[in-house]
Amino acid sequence: MPSPLRNGDLRSPAVVHHRQIPFQSTVSEQKLRRLNALILLLRFAAFCFSLAAAIFMASNSSRSQGSPSWLHFPSFRFVLAANSIVSIYCLFEMCASIWEILKGETLLPEPVQLWFDFSHDQVFAYMLLAAEATGTGVARDLHGHGACDAAGAFCVQAYISVALGFGGFAFLALSALLSGFRVACFVITGSRFHL
Amino acid sequence: MPSPLRNGDLRSPAVVHHRQIPFQSTVSEQKLRRLNALILLLRFAAFCFSLAAAIFMASNSSRSQGSPSWLHFPSFRFVLAANSIVSIYCLFEMCASIWEILKGETLLPEPVQLWFDFSHDQVFAYMLLAAEATGTGVARDLHGHGACDAAGAFCVQAYISVALGFGGFAFLALSALLSGFRVACFVITGSRFHL
Repeated sequence: MPSPLRNGDLRSPAVVHHRQIPFQSTVSEQKLRRLNALILLLRFAAFCFSLAAAIFMASNSSRSQGSPSWLHFPSFRFVLAANSIVSIYCLFEMCASIWEILKGETLLPEPVQLWFDFSHDQVFAYMLLAAEATGTGVARDLHGHGACDAAGAFCVQAYISVALGFGGFAFLALSALLSGFRVACFVITGSRFHL
Repeated sequence: MPSPLRNGDLRSPAVVHHRQIPFQSTVSEQKLRRLNALILLLRFAAFCFSLAAAIFMASNSSRSQGSPSWLHFPSFRFVLAANSIVSIYCLFEMCASIWEILKGETLLPEPVQLWFDFSHDQVFAYMLLAAEATGTGVARDLHGHGACDAAGAFCVQAYISVALGFGGFAFLALSALLSGFRVACFVITGSRFHL
């Protein structure tokens, strides 16, 4: 007589199939929700950093006659523009994520949304890195030429803005990795999360 | 009497299984080989561009007394260093790819090789972009301050080097996308290529 523990083996394949599918999809859904929450968190961090960087750079104008302004440096204008674009993009993406959490479906059709997220994350991460790199070069030159002696506050504020921008880049690059993984999942398995 | 065309449906599941597996794995292998060849091609292009950029920058020293050299500009030193590192890395990766094609197995253990490829592609692409962005900033400033009037050849050679470096970055970024897809395949399905 078979032991009670082995009774399960006698079920027909159809029954096994019916019992496993809801379990597996619940686990997948939970993982997908966790991945989406992590991406939302990273986007929120990128938003905070890039917004702070943009505000620091935009408010770095001449307090007194003759002191420098960010407007005089094309690289600092690039830093401001890149940080502004990234913060607006992150805000939009956060709204889309919250919409998805509340409504249970993506704002755009699912494949479009996935490719949109990944491509914009990646391109904006590259753009932000390029802006911060040129900003660093100019900020270092400022220091070298002694311009910081006359306008110490300007230099310090520029440094802080560039450093905050690098923070924004780091979070956006991590978010690009995760959304890239989501796209790869979709391409390979046809669903957004499957492990 | 069943038609001869439907005879195949009467095979036992075991036979179908045995017949399909080699077919499927051959298709996968063919796709993997094509993907590897594409990555090898992209790495070769990145190698050519970054090596040319490094040579152009390194040979951009003072031909006459008093004319500028790349050694005087920290950003140009960064451009030379980044391009040199990327070209050495691409050479190593090309050797690893050719080893894999000849021997049929990866140089390092498979998961290590996949993660090594992807992480280095991504990090070096970011590094190269940062170098080229600072190099662009400095090259543009050179032109603005009229230094190019006295040393036209120096400026032109610096521009060419930076432009070649951007080409290298583009190919390396594409290669990072593909090797990232390969890693995601491995994480999701346990094999490097599965569609």
